[in-house]
Amino acid sequence: MAPKIKDVAQKAGVSVTTVSRVLNGEKYVKDDLKARVKKAIDELGYTPSHIARSLVRKKTNLIGVIVPDVTSSFYATILSNIEKTASLNDYNLIVCNIIEDIDKEYKYLQVFKEMRVEGVIVMHEKLNDEIREFIDKMDIPLIFSSVKPNDQKFGSVIIDDRAAAYEATGYLIGLGHRRIAFIGGDMRDVTSGQGRYAGYMQAMHDNGIAIEQGHVRFGDYKTQSGYELMADMCGGGELPTAVFAASDDMAVGAMNCLHDKGLKVPEDVSVIGFDGSQLTELVRPRLTSMEQPIREMGQVTIEKLLDLIAGQTSREDAVLRHRLVVRDSCKAR
Amino acid sequence: MAPKIKDVAQKAGVSVTTVSRVLNGEKYVKDDLKARVKKAIDELGYTPSHIARSLVRKKTNLIGVIVPDVTSSFYATILSNIEKTASLNDYNLIVCNIIEDIDKEYKYLQVFKEMRVEGVIVMHEKLNDEIREFIDKMDIPLIFSSVKPNDQKFGSVIIDDRAAAYEATGYLIGLGHRRIAFIGGDMRDVTSGQGRYAGYMQAMHDNGIAIEQGHVRFGDYKTQSGYELMADMCGGGELPTAVFAASDDMAVGAMNCLHDKGLKVPEDVSVIGFDGSQLTELVRPRLTSMEQPIREMGQVTIEKLLDLIAGQTSREDAVLRHRLVVRDSCKAR
Repeated sequence: MAPKIKDVAQKAGVSVTTVSRVLNGEKYVKDDLKARVKKAIDELGYTPSHIARSLVRKKTNLIGVIVPDVTSSFYATILSNIEKTASLNDYNLIVCNIIEDIDKEYKYLQVFKEMRVEGVIVMHEKLNDEIREFIDKMDIPLIFSSVKPNDQKFGSVIIDDRAAAYEATGYLIGLGHRRIAFIGGDMRDVTSGQGRYAGYMQAMHDNGIAIEQGHVRFGDYKTQSGYELMADMCGGGELPTAVFAASDDMAVGAMNCLHDKGLKVPEDVSVIGFDGSQLTELVRPRLTSMEQPIREMGQVTIEKLLDLIAGQTSREDAVLRHRLVVRDSCKAR
Repeated sequence: MAPKIKDVAQKAGVSVTTVSRVLNGEKYVKDDLKARVKKAIDELGYTPSHIARSLVRKKTNLIGVIVPDVTSSFYATILSNIEKTASLNDYNLIVCNIIEDIDKEYKYLQVFKEMRVEGVIVMHEKLNDEIREFIDKMDIPLIFSSVKPNDQKFGSVIIDDRAAAYEATGYLIGLGHRRIAFIGGDMRDVTSGQGRYAGYMQAMHDNGIAIEQGHVRFGDYKTQSGYELMADMCGGGELPTAVFAASDDMAVGAMNCLHDKGLKVPEDVSVIGFDGSQLTELVRPRLTSMEQPIREMGQVTIEKLLDLIAGQTSREDAVLRHRLVVRDSCKAR
């Protein structure tokens, strides 16, 4: 059994009220009483109950975080930076890894509410009607990180995906490429799916370049889908001279497929990714990528949420800057 | 303001006691009263306070997890599998990412105790005296996952690192290699540091192979250190024909260094890693590795912890099976 406050009082030979006064840091407690109480606390290993204190203070110092997949280096890096800043502000995270399962998201949001978390961070935009209704009524500050679902009153921390994809495609065009393929994400996603696709299409259109049959395909952001979609493209029709993938993971999958087919990157095919994850530096050739400021994204997310918890009411989005990082996977034609 | 139980009672036109009886699922509540209470709960978006209920039930359904670094794919995969099984058993995780900071670990353990978590998982073995004393007194079921610190009364879920490293080295010897270098981990770590080093040394000794000057070096498990230590080895003395790295990340770092120096893996130098992380399949050539059953490790960890929470007292270690997975990064001499 964990020791209770009365055990501390008994061991120190003082009243429960005195222990409580010492714990609450009140003045006018005699030094020798203080010393006896502290000694008893140390010896017993007593910790005041957070739960009991929460009921009194109405503060739990908890933040709930919904992560789609913690094994993705992109989300893990955001999470790691959220944690760092939260911890500096004495907040603790309850992290729920939904592994792309919307039903789990709904369940966890209910848990967050039950736990009286002070704020919620969601890194996921596949909301169903049940979830939309629930967060609408929840009355807890909420912020979306790295995504911006349609029709939500809550703020987001994002980049301009469309502009970033436009620039990534423009970079390939500037290198002289015309047969530029696109490996997109999930088109149900407003930001990373639709936004990046729209940017690619616009850049091709603005430069008067027709898109070849079979050169636009959609995956799930993961390496395996990049590999398979690239294999499909190699299966028939003319090979692209450059590929723009909507995630670094899919870009690495595409590179690996080309490698396994005996084609060289960037000599035969140039590949550009999106995200700026750790992978870009791990693969050979190192991957040129349109970088999101992943660390900053985590930090800004938690800062904005703490502002909301502190009573600030602005729900404007924070749109962070993307930037092209040129490494070794693209080549002029 | 979040609605309270009395708001539900008022809206449903019943007493607080009736609402409470409905919430607690008691029998003998008339169906029409039940329906009115449920309607009022839905309309108000009322959620019973988890905190208040915890005080009554003395169950929080929380498990605290200390992760050294969530951006490492090894830990993220274990965590993801812990989460999966915990969630199936209605437990929620409080995840604390200590980013290798022991002071943070101590702070979080205190938070866990304050929060009345029912169990604690630690994936880290750099315990200082303060932490040792604290967990000794904490009186909460605790389990170590993937590590086994010295002199601890708590159980661990691990593999036999020494035997696994012995086999990895033996594999290279079997391929005809003699100049086999070792890139080790942190020698303060009993399992992944000392255990893997001991296995390598033993295998070399048992086969009567002398270790060349400068061919044993120690890093921090990360890619960057594998890269740098390999670069040091290339800087002078005779190049090894094979390298055994104590983590896949360091193995990939070593491979990248060799690549950047114009050397070919496995034609010029064979490389074998340790862990069996996602990286092994992402790099080219694909990395041969001594695989830990990472998914199983997460699952067994949480299963053993739930047993402890349920009152089981066995604190035996679970030693899981490692296995060599041969891919494309090693070659016979």
